[in-house]
Amino acid sequence: MDIRFEKREHLQEKPDQKNLGFGKHFTDYMFVMDWDKEQGWHDAAIVPYGGIPMDPATMVLHYAQETFEGMKAYRTAEGKIQLFRPEMNARRMIKSNERLCMPGVPEEMFVEAVKALVKAQEDWVPSEPGTSLYIRPFMFATEASLGVHMAKSYKFVIITTPVGAYYAEGINPVKILVEDEYVRAVKGGTGFTKCGGNYASSIAGQVKAEKMGCTQVLWLDGVHRKYVEEVGTMNIMFKIAGEIYTAPLEGTVLPGVTRDSLIHILRDWGYKVNETHLSIDDLMKAGHDGTLEEAFGTGTAAVVSPVGEFVYKDDSVIVNDFKIGELTQKLYDTLTGIQWGKLEDKYGWTTPVE
Amino acid sequence: MDIRFEKREHLQEKPDQKNLGFGKHFTDYMFVMDWDKEQGWHDAAIVPYGGIPMDPATMVLHYAQETFEGMKAYRTAEGKIQLFRPEMNARRMIKSNERLCMPGVPEEMFVEAVKALVKAQEDWVPSEPGTSLYIRPFMFATEASLGVHMAKSYKFVIITTPVGAYYAEGINPVKILVEDEYVRAVKGGTGFTKCGGNYASSIAGQVKAEKMGCTQVLWLDGVHRKYVEEVGTMNIMFKIAGEIYTAPLEGTVLPGVTRDSLIHILRDWGYKVNETHLSIDDLMKAGHDGTLEEAFGTGTAAVVSPVGEFVYKDDSVIVNDFKIGELTQKLYDTLTGIQWGKLEDKYGWTTPVE
Repeated sequence: MDIRFEKREHLQEKPDQKNLGFGKHFTDYMFVMDWDKEQGWHDAAIVPYGGIPMDPATMVLHYAQETFEGMKAYRTAEGKIQLFRPEMNARRMIKSNERLCMPGVPEEMFVEAVKALVKAQEDWVPSEPGTSLYIRPFMFATEASLGVHMAKSYKFVIITTPVGAYYAEGINPVKILVEDEYVRAVKGGTGFTKCGGNYASSIAGQVKAEKMGCTQVLWLDGVHRKYVEEVGTMNIMFKIAGEIYTAPLEGTVLPGVTRDSLIHILRDWGYKVNETHLSIDDLMKAGHDGTLEEAFGTGTAAVVSPVGEFVYKDDSVIVNDFKIGELTQKLYDTLTGIQWGKLEDKYGWTTPVE
Repeated sequence: MDIRFEKREHLQEKPDQKNLGFGKHFTDYMFVMDWDKEQGWHDAAIVPYGGIPMDPATMVLHYAQETFEGMKAYRTAEGKIQLFRPEMNARRMIKSNERLCMPGVPEEMFVEAVKALVKAQEDWVPSEPGTSLYIRPFMFATEASLGVHMAKSYKFVIITTPVGAYYAEGINPVKILVEDEYVRAVKGGTGFTKCGGNYASSIAGQVKAEKMGCTQVLWLDGVHRKYVEEVGTMNIMFKIAGEIYTAPLEGTVLPGVTRDSLIHILRDWGYKVNETHLSIDDLMKAGHDGTLEEAFGTGTAAVVSPVGEFVYKDDSVIVNDFKIGELTQKLYDTLTGIQWGKLEDKYGWTTPVE
């Protein structure tokens, strides 16, 4: 792929690595590439980060033909930079785009673009413990037209932002509201994709949870309103009587890279991982009879996010005395150890940016 | 409301009224207004139509917090301009925005903005039979941030485009695919809103229908995959054994202004209108035993769109010999008669733009 480079006159000052937050500071450059039917993908370029002029009739502003990905670049103790399973993000974006009738960026092209952008601004990959460069590839319909149809042109953009440790004071368990009014996904819909519409519709549940003193939402399936699917914008796993449970990938749940990696590690450690439908009634029952040992969300941003309490209608259960579980901590340490190059990468999951 | 007016230096040449198409030509001006928590709605202005610069981290491009409306301005035989039930669009947008956790534009402000924009460019309202000025109010999150949350700032925009008769050669029945794989909406989701995500997820069904030689999709409910809900981006009505059937407004179906108006007219004419769940099996059965007399989609763009055939799995039924039904035609003539001021507006549905 031929990537044009447009030099920026003045580079920004870099933010304090100890106060990065999440998605607040954007780096000096972004990757852009356009698609249309005649030329396919063309005009790949790394250009100064900045505004994209948009016609008010641009289809993405009306019909939300838009998808995204989330991944990170990690700086190792030796000062090298590595990515974690970037080909998984590339493939997932292709699947998202298929469902949304958008063109896919071929896997090699996607990974090459990510690497080139990170390499071009390697000084932006922070080195403080727990920090990383968050990478946000996204694509949207650019045709200016008001008919509802597959757009004739798209833009693929990658922006990057240095981010701090997700949990400034270590990972703490959170209180979760089991949502029985709003639905995140249903089979036949877009639940397995990272399309904008999924996130827009989820905000109401999040707002409601916060009003009720909870941090996040546990989503139930849209048909029976019974089976546990995701927590907030993460996958979720449970340890019940020594075995692991997580929702199966049947079209309503995001195929998380962290989810997949943790399942690999857990099975490697000899755990039985059940990718199966777990009902909220069985979960609450396990909470009450003490067999629910641990519960945690999994995702790129937080890696693992322990759950301390589930609130469902008039009932609630505390998990592991509202303390992070032993297995949860071990999974966090192992996966982040591989990602930051502190532990041996026996699965071959990391890719150097050279 | 104080609306600033920013004059455009050169007005565009107006397109040929006989070849307008849909959403191809945009007028000289647009309405814009911004919202943030501190100021609420502010900076209302009518400005030259043109590009809106957008930071690549703008939330609408990632999480699709965006809603829209669709309505028309009609030119009467006397040369006057009128709107059709604009307060219904205003109220529906407020409902859409509530679900998406976006601020609402108050009804009076919404209608005033629409009128001011139409008035400012009244020369753009075409006069050829069947033509109108399509009005597209829309709103989107403008905050530049990658956290998934209710955005802190929004933009409300209205653009307008002169449109031709939806059916250049009169209204013709179309062939419809009953979709049993993709789902448009489920209770607890966003089906009753005009949010971008609904439309993005619907494109795959449309593409599939076209591949199978059909013009549009008939959506079934997301839970039982059994009850008839909408057709394409329209509501749908059936005349079976002399009575009218249409899906009830229970959260999965758009509360269409045309739907509501036709129900009023039909009941006024003495028809029994059943807002109830009609199963696809009962529909196909009615098609086979001859009691399915007419079927038509209803919406702002096409007003009524007759269905000539339903294809469901290996079965198919022809409606009214693939000809437009008598009632369908009468409804079309009556509603468009009121909208263009050719018939008496006994319901008080039209509002002059003065």
